[in-house]
Amino acid sequence: MEFMEYEKTLDILKNNLISWDRVEKVAITNALNRYLAVDIIAKENYPKSQTASMDGYAIKFNSKCKEYKILGSNPAGEFKFKSLSDFECIKTFTGSLMPQNADTLVPVENVKVTNDKIEILKNVNQGFAVRKIGESYKKGEILLKKGTKISYSEIALLAEIGEFHISVFVKPKVCVMASGSEIKDLGEPLENEAQIRSSNHVAIASMMQLMGCEAIILPIVKDEKETVKKAILNSLKFCDILITTGGVSMGDYDFIKEILDSKTIINGAAIKPGRHIKIAKFNEKYIFALPGFPYSAMVMCVLYVRVLVESFFCATKDHFINAVLENDYTKKSPFLEFSACSLKVDENGIVRANLEGKKNGSSAIVNNLNNEAALLVVPKELKGYKKGDVVQILKMI
Amino acid sequence: MEFMEYEKTLDILKNNLISWDRVEKVAITNALNRYLAVDIIAKENYPKSQTASMDGYAIKFNSKCKEYKILGSNPAGEFKFKSLSDFECIKTFTGSLMPQNADTLVPVENVKVTNDKIEILKNVNQGFAVRKIGESYKKGEILLKKGTKISYSEIALLAEIGEFHISVFVKPKVCVMASGSEIKDLGEPLENEAQIRSSNHVAIASMMQLMGCEAIILPIVKDEKETVKKAILNSLKFCDILITTGGVSMGDYDFIKEILDSKTIINGAAIKPGRHIKIAKFNEKYIFALPGFPYSAMVMCVLYVRVLVESFFCATKDHFINAVLENDYTKKSPFLEFSACSLKVDENGIVRANLEGKKNGSSAIVNNLNNEAALLVVPKELKGYKKGDVVQILKMI
Repeated sequence: MEFMEYEKTLDILKNNLISWDRVEKVAITNALNRYLAVDIIAKENYPKSQTASMDGYAIKFNSKCKEYKILGSNPAGEFKFKSLSDFECIKTFTGSLMPQNADTLVPVENVKVTNDKIEILKNVNQGFAVRKIGESYKKGEILLKKGTKISYSEIALLAEIGEFHISVFVKPKVCVMASGSEIKDLGEPLENEAQIRSSNHVAIASMMQLMGCEAIILPIVKDEKETVKKAILNSLKFCDILITTGGVSMGDYDFIKEILDSKTIINGAAIKPGRHIKIAKFNEKYIFALPGFPYSAMVMCVLYVRVLVESFFCATKDHFINAVLENDYTKKSPFLEFSACSLKVDENGIVRANLEGKKNGSSAIVNNLNNEAALLVVPKELKGYKKGDVVQILKMI
Repeated sequence: MEFMEYEKTLDILKNNLISWDRVEKVAITNALNRYLAVDIIAKENYPKSQTASMDGYAIKFNSKCKEYKILGSNPAGEFKFKSLSDFECIKTFTGSLMPQNADTLVPVENVKVTNDKIEILKNVNQGFAVRKIGESYKKGEILLKKGTKISYSEIALLAEIGEFHISVFVKPKVCVMASGSEIKDLGEPLENEAQIRSSNHVAIASMMQLMGCEAIILPIVKDEKETVKKAILNSLKFCDILITTGGVSMGDYDFIKEILDSKTIINGAAIKPGRHIKIAKFNEKYIFALPGFPYSAMVMCVLYVRVLVESFFCATKDHFINAVLENDYTKKSPFLEFSACSLKVDENGIVRANLEGKKNGSSAIVNNLNNEAALLVVPKELKGYKKGDVVQILKMI
C-alpha cells in the first residue's frame, strides 16, 4: 500500500473545509477559552479624558512655582472641579479625571499640606502621572481580531469597553467512539487477560474540550460490521465531527474503513504513528477514523482534527516551533515521524527538546505524552538526528 | 514609605502557608485541569502479557523457516490459542495477546496465505511488533506525582490503569471584590464621564478559574469604610481567599488597608506595578488587596496569589524562563519591574522577548496583556536592558 505524504493529505483536508458560519452570543463571564467570531474595535478613545494615575494634586505645570492653593477635591467618580487657574491645585485620586486645563499630577508623597496650601517638596516633570487621552487605545483601533481565543485579559478588555454579550463561534459537537471487541469501558471489570480498558475515548474527548469543542463520548462498539455502521450513521445525526478509534488497519475485523469508503477524502498517510488514518466527509460533517493505539490516536488528533477545528474558529496560532535536540534520534520507519519529547528552556533562552524518560516501543504508550509532552518532527527524507541539531517541534495541547 | 523586596515578601508568604489538606474524589471524566492529591502508582506491569502491536501472524522466530501452518486465529479480546509449536503460526490482531511461547509477529503485509499456510515474503527481526511485558510501565512505578495538573494524556493513563474515581485537591473558593466609587458593573450605564467600567473583577475571576480555583464575583463596593469592612468580613464566611482591587494606595478613600491592619502579613513591596499590595491572613483564610489598575491587579495575581494557590495544589511548575530581548528597555522606577512582552521562538530555537505593540504608559493598560503576553522581569539594581540581553521572563497564565 502506498501512503500519501502528510503535506498532501493536509492539502486535501484544507480543500475540503467548510465555512463555519455558526455564531452565538455569550456573556463575557462565560466566554473563557471561546473564540471571537468578530473583530472588536474601539468605539472611543480610552481613556476618553485625561485621568490621574496616582493620588495627588493636579496642577498647571510651572517649574518655578512651589506653592499652590487647594481649590478642592475630586474623589474618584466625581468631577466637581473641572478647571483651575495658575497656582491652584485640586486634590485628585487614582483613576479620577484631571481638571481639563491641568497637565501634571504631584503625588501626595511629594507635598506638605498646610491648611489650604500645598508645598512641593520633591519636583516632578511636566505630565507626571497623567494618563493621556487614548493612552490605552484610540477610537477605531482593532483591539481583538476575529479568531482570538479569549483569555483573562481579553475578558478584562471586553468589560472595559462595555461589551457584555459577545459573538463567539459555536462549539463543534464532537462524538468520540472507541471500537474494538477487546475494549472494556470505565468501571467495567476485565473478564479475561485479552481484554483491555479503553483510554482513547476519554483522552480524545478531553483533547477536544481543550480545543474548544463540545465532546460527547459514545458507547464502545464491538468489531461487528453492522453494529459499527449503525453507530456511525446514528452519531452523524447529532454531531459535526465523529472521531473513531480502532478498526482502521489491515485486520479482518477493521470494518470502519469499509463503511467510510465512498466518502473517504484521505486514506492513509506516510507518517508514524498513524499511517492507517482515514478521513471522510459526509456533506458538512467529518469522520476521523484514528488508529486504536492511544498514543497514535492522540497524535492524530493534533495532526488532523485540530487543523479542522481551528479553521472553524479562524484561529491562526502556529503550533510548530524550533528547538535544539539533546539526544541522538534514529528513525524507526521510512515515514515522517512524530516522537514524544519534553521541552525546557535553558539559561540562554534556548528551547531544548529531550527524549529521556520517553519509552521506546510501540504507539501504545500513553504515558509518553504525560507532563505536557511535545512531538519531535522527523522528516521522511532523514535517517534521524544528532544531539545538538536544530529540530522542528509540534506542540500538543 | 519603605518598600520591602519582592523576595522578602515571598518568604513571608511562604512562611504563612497552610497545609491544604482538602481532598475530594472526582470521576476522571470531570478531572481535566484538576490537581492530583496522591501519587498514582502502577499496580501491575502494562502490558501484563506480551501483545501484538500490528495485525499479523505470531510465530516462534526461526530465521531459516519461511512457511508456517496456520493453527487458528485470536481476534482482539479472545485468547483461544495460547501456545504454538515450531513451524506453526496464529493469526493475531493489533492489541491481541501473543501466544505465550511466540516471540515475533509477521505483519499481514509480509506474507502470502495459501489455504492453511503462510509463506513469508519479507523477513522481520526476532521480536518484531511485539509489545513486551511492562513496555508501558512496570509494577510499582510512580506514574503520576501528587500535584500533577491533569490533562488529556493523564486522563488516558488513569483510564488505562482502571482508576475511575480519583483524589484531587478541592478547589479553593476565591471571592473577587472590586472597590471604588467610580466603578460601574457590567451592563450598568455610565452616569458621568468620571465613572469607568469595572474590568478587574471579571479578569481576576477568570485568572483564578484558569489557576484551578472556584471564582465568585462579589458586588462592587463603594469607597465607604463601613460598607467595605462589612463586605470583607462577610465574604470571609464563604471563601478561602478574598481578592480585592482598589483602595490600597495613599488616598483618603483607601480604606482597605486600614481594615486589614492587624492581620496584615505583607504591606507593600518594592515592585512596579503593584507596590501598594497588602496581604492579610485571617486564620486559614487570605486576603489579597491588589491595586485598582487592572494591569497591576492581573500582574499581582500572578506574583502572589498563584504562589499561594499552587502551594495548596502541591504544584511545582516553574513559571520563569530565560529569553533574548529584542528591544532596549529603560527602567521606569527604582523597583523590581514587570513589563508586558510577547514571546516567540526563532528558527534557531531561541525564545525572543519583544516589547513592540506594548503601549508605554500607566498600569491601567489592560490590552498590554492580550495575546498571551508574558512579563519581562527587570531587577531592582539594573537601569534597564539592551537589545540582545538574556533576560528573565515570568509567564502569565
